[in-house]
Amino acid sequence: MSDIKKTRTTVDIYGQQYTIVGPESASHVRLVASLVDDKMREISSLNPNLDTNKLAVLTAVNAVNDYLKVKDRIERLESEIQRLKE
Amino acid sequence: MSDIKKTRTTVDIYGQQYTIVGPESASHVRLVASLVDDKMREISSLNPNLDTNKLAVLTAVNAVNDYLKVKDRIERLESEIQRLKE
Repeated sequence: MSDIKKTRTTVDIYGQQYTIVGPESASHVRLVASLVDDKMREISSLNPNLDTNKLAVLTAVNAVNDYLKVKDRIERLESEIQRLKE
Repeated sequence: MSDIKKTRTTVDIYGQQYTIVGPESASHVRLVASLVDDKMREISSLNPNLDTNKLAVLTAVNAVNDYLKVKDRIERLESEIQRLKE
């Protein structure tokens, strides 16, 4: 059993409903869902022949790629802070 | 026409092949694909009744959520650097 308060939020992504359970606020979950929906529509417009399944996987690939890029940037910023503090 | 060199990399994600075209190196694309594959398997083990399509969308939701978290952290680190430089 966990003491962390969890919210259940139902969102619509690419015409399908999902109930997301987690510690994030409903408004945060809706923001994430709308970003995923936007990205799926963008990838779909560039590749009109993709089925929904491949489209969703490529959206995940895209998001993980963005994540790794910003994570790299964090490492550089942390080094800079370390240097400024010395 | 663009001068940016693009590579074509074929990867396997959750039993399906994808050819990813982009400026990233083949090794980077393979890393991203293996992270997406791992995340799909993790979400699938927690929700064994999900179909692949929903699983892929939830993986994208997860990745975008992680992306927003690290992006927030970047903003905080940048403010700290600004403060240290003053």
